Amino acid sequence: MKALVYYGPYDVRVIETPDAQIEQPTDVLVKITTSNICGSDLHMYEGRTDMEEGRILGHENMGKVVEIGSAVTQIKIGDMVCLPFNIGCGHCNNCEKGLTGYCLVMNPGFAGAAYGFAGMGPYSGGQAEYLRVPFGDFNCLKLPEDAEEKENDYVMLSDIFPTGYHATELANVQVGDTVVIYGAGPVGLMAAHSAIIKGASKVMVVDNHKDRLKLAEEFGAIPIDFSTAPAVEQVLELTNGMGADKGCECVGYQCCDKHGEEHSNVTMNELVQAVKATGSIGVVGVFVSKDPKSKETLQKKGHMEFDFGNFWMKGQRIATGQANVKSYNRQLCSLISSGKAHPSKIISHEISLQDAPDAYKHFNARDKGWTKIILKPAMSKSK
Amino acid sequence: MKALVYYGPYDVRVIETPDAQIEQPTDVLVKITTSNICGSDLHMYEGRTDMEEGRILGHENMGKVVEIGSAVTQIKIGDMVCLPFNIGCGHCNNCEKGLTGYCLVMNPGFAGAAYGFAGMGPYSGGQAEYLRVPFGDFNCLKLPEDAEEKENDYVMLSDIFPTGYHATELANVQVGDTVVIYGAGPVGLMAAHSAIIKGASKVMVVDNHKDRLKLAEEFGAIPIDFSTAPAVEQVLELTNGMGADKGCECVGYQCCDKHGEEHSNVTMNELVQAVKATGSIGVVGVFVSKDPKSKETLQKKGHMEFDFGNFWMKGQRIATGQANVKSYNRQLCSLISSGKAHPSKIISHEISLQDAPDAYKHFNARDKGWTKIILKPAMSKSK
Amino acid sequence: MKALVYYGPYDVRVIETPDAQIEQPTDVLVKITTSNICGSDLHMYEGRTDMEEGRILGHENMGKVVEIGSAVTQIKIGDMVCLPFNIGCGHCNNCEKGLTGYCLVMNPGFAGAAYGFAGMGPYSGGQAEYLRVPFGDFNCLKLPEDAEEKENDYVMLSDIFPTGYHATELANVQVGDTVVIYGAGPVGLMAAHSAIIKGASKVMVVDNHKDRLKLAEEFGAIPIDFSTAPAVEQVLELTNGMGADKGCECVGYQCCDKHGEEHSNVTMNELVQAVKATGSIGVVGVFVSKDPKSKETLQKKGHMEFDFGNFWMKGQRIATGQANVKSYNRQLCSLISSGKAHPSKIISHEISLQDAPDAYKHFNARDKGWTKIILKPAMSKSK
Amino acid sequence: MKALVYYGPYDVRVIETPDAQIEQPTDVLVKITTSNICGSDLHMYEGRTDMEEGRILGHENMGKVVEIGSAVTQIKIGDMVCLPFNIGCGHCNNCEKGLTGYCLVMNPGFAGAAYGFAGMGPYSGGQAEYLRVPFGDFNCLKLPEDAEEKENDYVMLSDIFPTGYHATELANVQVGDTVVIYGAGPVGLMAAHSAIIKGASKVMVVDNHKDRLKLAEEFGAIPIDFSTAPAVEQVLELTNGMGADKGCECVGYQCCDKHGEEHSNVTMNELVQAVKATGSIGVVGVFVSKDPKSKETLQKKGHMEFDFGNFWMKGQRIATGQANVKSYNRQLCSLISSGKAHPSKIISHEISLQDAPDAYKHFNARDKGWTKIILKPAMSKSK
Repeated sequence: MKALVYYGPYDVRVIETPDAQIEQPTDVLVKITTSNICGSDLHMYEGRTDMEEGRILGHENMGKVVEIGSAVTQIKIGDMVCLPFNIGCGHCNNCEKGLTGYCLVMNPGFAGAAYGFAGMGPYSGGQAEYLRVPFGDFNCLKLPEDAEEKENDYVMLSDIFPTGYHATELANVQVGDTVVIYGAGPVGLMAAHSAIIKGASKVMVVDNHKDRLKLAEEFGAIPIDFSTAPAVEQVLELTNGMGADKGCECVGYQCCDKHGEEHSNVTMNELVQAVKATGSIGVVGVFVSKDPKSKETLQKKGHMEFDFGNFWMKGQRIATGQANVKSYNRQLCSLISSGKAHPSKIISHEISLQDAPDAYKHFNARDKGWTKIILKPAMSKSK
Repeated sequence: MKALVYYGPYDVRVIETPDAQIEQPTDVLVKITTSNICGSDLHMYEGRTDMEEGRILGHENMGKVVEIGSAVTQIKIGDMVCLPFNIGCGHCNNCEKGLTGYCLVMNPGFAGAAYGFAGMGPYSGGQAEYLRVPFGDFNCLKLPEDAEEKENDYVMLSDIFPTGYHATELANVQVGDTVVIYGAGPVGLMAAHSAIIKGASKVMVVDNHKDRLKLAEEFGAIPIDFSTAPAVEQVLELTNGMGADKGCECVGYQCCDKHGEEHSNVTMNELVQAVKATGSIGVVGVFVSKDPKSKETLQKKGHMEFDFGNFWMKGQRIATGQANVKSYNRQLCSLISSGKAHPSKIISHEISLQDAPDAYKHFNARDKGWTKIILKPAMSKSK
Repeated sequence: MKALVYYGPYDVRVIETPDAQIEQPTDVLVKITTSNICGSDLHMYEGRTDMEEGRILGHENMGKVVEIGSAVTQIKIGDMVCLPFNIGCGHCNNCEKGLTGYCLVMNPGFAGAAYGFAGMGPYSGGQAEYLRVPFGDFNCLKLPEDAEEKENDYVMLSDIFPTGYHATELANVQVGDTVVIYGAGPVGLMAAHSAIIKGASKVMVVDNHKDRLKLAEEFGAIPIDFSTAPAVEQVLELTNGMGADKGCECVGYQCCDKHGEEHSNVTMNELVQAVKATGSIGVVGVFVSKDPKSKETLQKKGHMEFDFGNFWMKGQRIATGQANVKSYNRQLCSLISSGKAHPSKIISHEISLQDAPDAYKHFNARDKGWTKIILKPAMSKSK
Repeated sequence: MKALVYYGPYDVRVIETPDAQIEQPTDVLVKITTSNICGSDLHMYEGRTDMEEGRILGHENMGKVVEIGSAVTQIKIGDMVCLPFNIGCGHCNNCEKGLTGYCLVMNPGFAGAAYGFAGMGPYSGGQAEYLRVPFGDFNCLKLPEDAEEKENDYVMLSDIFPTGYHATELANVQVGDTVVIYGAGPVGLMAAHSAIIKGASKVMVVDNHKDRLKLAEEFGAIPIDFSTAPAVEQVLELTNGMGADKGCECVGYQCCDKHGEEHSNVTMNELVQAVKATGSIGVVGVFVSKDPKSKETLQKKGHMEFDFGNFWMKGQRIATGQANVKSYNRQLCSLISSGKAHPSKIISHEISLQDAPDAYKHFNARDKGWTKIILKPAMSKSK
């Protein structure tokens, strides 16, 4: 089968590889119909992780079931399914509490496994024609009848829609709240979409990319361009000087100041200021425990200079981590199906698998207009 | 009346001051029967805050109502009452949600007010013969009939019992949990007492003061002496290598490493290691937004080098801040009344108000056996 | 002042009465600008309660502060305020937990007080020119600057918007849920509005009044006319035979079957069937502990024949009671202010206070189109 | 193998039946070391259900794994395991939320499956030498190293300890609460044990069996004998006339009045009176949707005359249903392991499997001292 393989920093290629196949009686084999490129793929693409060469990338996957193992009972051949990026066993202490992003079984020695991801187990990604799904009954979300019609919406259930939603859950967003979201990338936009769906009264999205801020506005949020004035000042002005009730971090450790320089603590320390006393902050942007290629001394070992004093004085809370996709994908699926959510609105490019290497370049360069790329293995390469 | 007044670093004196009195129709005047010295009084005592000279200290107070304002309807003269250290108005956005530690009215420009405390409003403390209580109907907890008999237990409802309990609430301690608590001072011991009352299966308390660790053991906790082996290692060993389910920080910014040197990030970074992935950490130890007298560069501005990378990778949560005493004091009062809680067990010294200056010295020096000092204004000075 | 007074069953009159005035130092005096007629006023109007003759009705009130008591500190003369129908003291065990609908102080011997309501204390209602508001700092919601412009929306914060919202809270409505609401009267419509604001995926409203079902549809709900086919069947069909995730009862003890006959158990027993196993049901429709004028033997003593067997087998939950308005009015106020909620949409009649007796007749007869009547004391009587 | 088989009302026999065996690759085969008789077995024993003749009873099971299917990955031969009475698939909408008592897969057409139970699927019970456990990785709780030493405690994790605990969860019992529990049978005693573990300040247990009330007292509860004075009066007296904060129903539809006559509504209507306004009631006693052999007209169809009027006026809540055992068994296991819970204290008889028919007789007759019977298949028949 064809698959996009990591060869090293800035080098991904679509090559022929051995077909994915059923390995365990509980496995399901899926023919990929859509697989997205995710912002977190760029950490690997840039060589900022210890991703092994030769592995297939892609953790935002959807497709049609073409084969099932002998112990699979609910998922059937022909089912259209969306695959949560986290792989859970379904019966460990964490999975049974819904903490499927921290499965204790699938990636021994670490809490959490994923498809095609550095440090998240040996599983191949889905930027390919086929994907093996372990514990298929547990890890497949069977989609409704309009699965093909709304495919570009449903594929977002694999990661960024639940991840954006997770940010609002970690931040405990409630009806009527004012919310500030750092980052207008795909996840930040999904957090904004989620906060608005939940009945927030005012959602503010901070970024300096005008095209992305425009998308935030289309979702009903207030764009805050930090290149024009300090974001914290703008948020305070919009909240009578109190700060937002809740905050979401959707950027991660490669966040930058207004000069475009990476400082891993920029977003977190601004959130402490921009969120009110007693407010909560949800952090879904990725932070890492070591980052030897960073230019910052503290960040090399995964530390940051954090404004803990103000954080404590304000009695705030921070909740972090990867989304437990299965905790949200059924309810968000209902919203898509009933026409109340439209995550596909952020898609900027719908291309063939074979065009993926070029797309990686543009996406990594944050080229204007390259917001979200989805890959269709069945599509022919553009000329 | 007699009162203990702050004269400057390491200098507190008991002097004659004008009597406390009713100032507003909603005020209540209380004759103090017990007032405690709190660990946080030491931050002021040492001159590590901007406490004004001439103010009366004391925020852990209990006594008998001797006068009520014209608008007071529920509290009566003769009632025995315990006063939460935080002063709330009872009708602001925060107070009405139970966030009385972050009242928006009593200390304009800052969320939260307290008796006799730096930066928490102009209110006099209760290490004195009388105390004025604003919004008396809201800020007095009327005690049951056994108030005088169990006075030394009930006075702990003013601060450290609810504050220790708050640590376990912030950490979301549940039945069956393993819990690690940093600090075996009065608040840490109350956190241990609370965690055990809540049905934790294993409570570990970290300190290097043997007398305090012994008290922890008497409450049913497992003492962890970090002077004998690294605390994190001991916790991991006691939790099958997983880390504790939940953690509590009950030390604050003046925490020390094993050499007795202050490093404000010691407890927090150890907690990130000692608590399991997906675990929660409650922080009631005080951290401050500026600390010019610290020897640490970052700490001077209230910052710390925090292990945010591991914190995020483990999907942990931190919740912080002062206890909203009124949210817990009724239920904890029931536990004392029904004989299920015994916070007075930590009292080491019960002395006269006039002996307080000497007690401050011993307590600040962490002299062996000086765990908790309570002052009785009605008692005569020792010779 | 002019006020609408209860003279007996089907007999209310607008007469001159002594002016409302400040009685306690914590009181606030409000000049009423809008006061609504509520569905629960009809229970009194029909003589189905033990309402005393001579009392002023009206518990959905809004107006301008014209005088404050000496102990009032936050509310100022000139403030536009909306008054929760429940009157709380602000410092009892229930009020301080946010259970202001069950205040233990304002109506001794019973949990809960209200303006102009049978069995809810001696307080006069606001269908009048002036209203005395006890504990004004606690019981007034100060409105934003657009208070007069959006007056007809804000007045709904006194009762039916929070009450409808409360139904969805009691039923634990979550993002993506399917919800069935019994009753398309003002409260049922507000429950539908609330459920949609909260991100429900499908909201079904059951009634047989076509004009009200049409309003439900305008709010984005699916109308279910039980006169055309059994409501339960329609709900099951719309939910793949599973039943709705959550249910709301917004009718109360005078609910009727399809023949228009009162049977107090109709809505509850249908909800048990229409809601799925493990689902929750919120009940804000009023049920009473005795109802001597009912034709049903059980209902005379406030009992009903309830399908407890299926309720238990399905593992369902029921939560009941009056809305604690203060728990929701700030956040719902934000939604009105930010243009995300439009409760005034249900108003059918905006009339003078003096026209109220006639309006009571039409409203009680459920005359077509008489959905919600609001009274403006400043308006002249129609000719 | 030997097994206890249902032959008809009051007729159970231990006979030789075909061995239980692995049927699916996800199955686990357990050699039973202990299996309990449960109060709910008596509903079947008396013929009050539609239990099929020829089926093996027993849903409170523990044992050693002797064989595993090819798709089982975590459970190993030799593991000591306790089996939740509910059988879940682990991947349906309900199981993945922790609602394993309402699995949508294992018993098609109904939410919930169990071993050896009327209406809960075709699964054989464990009052036998061997038991087939479907989806073994999901449905086995692997026990700690002291499994054999504390076997009589751990076996209670299969049902009654989690069920009693569930009652306190459904009733939302919090630290400091007063709690009234109807029923001092095994489940009621476990509810009392749980409420005390959770930090309730006062736990009252209502029954008229003196031996059982004595056990309640040994667990630290206050016994309330309704044969001496009305239970509601006694509860009100113990709670200053307010009623208990929370209530638990642990009897079910065969509850009796003081004359020993069955009236299915006795416990529920008393709980409405005995619990305070705004309080919650958890119901784990079984109620059924039809009961043709009842003498009560309403109860025949599963209905009851319920005091809905007072229930609503008091703003109470009811939550019901079977315990989702897997939601609690890990944490309760920790409590046993750490010596903080002792559920085996209620065992009155430890006998051989072959003595079970006689034990059923005594238990059903509520013979004095027959509180809880556990069966040991490895034990020899008594002479």
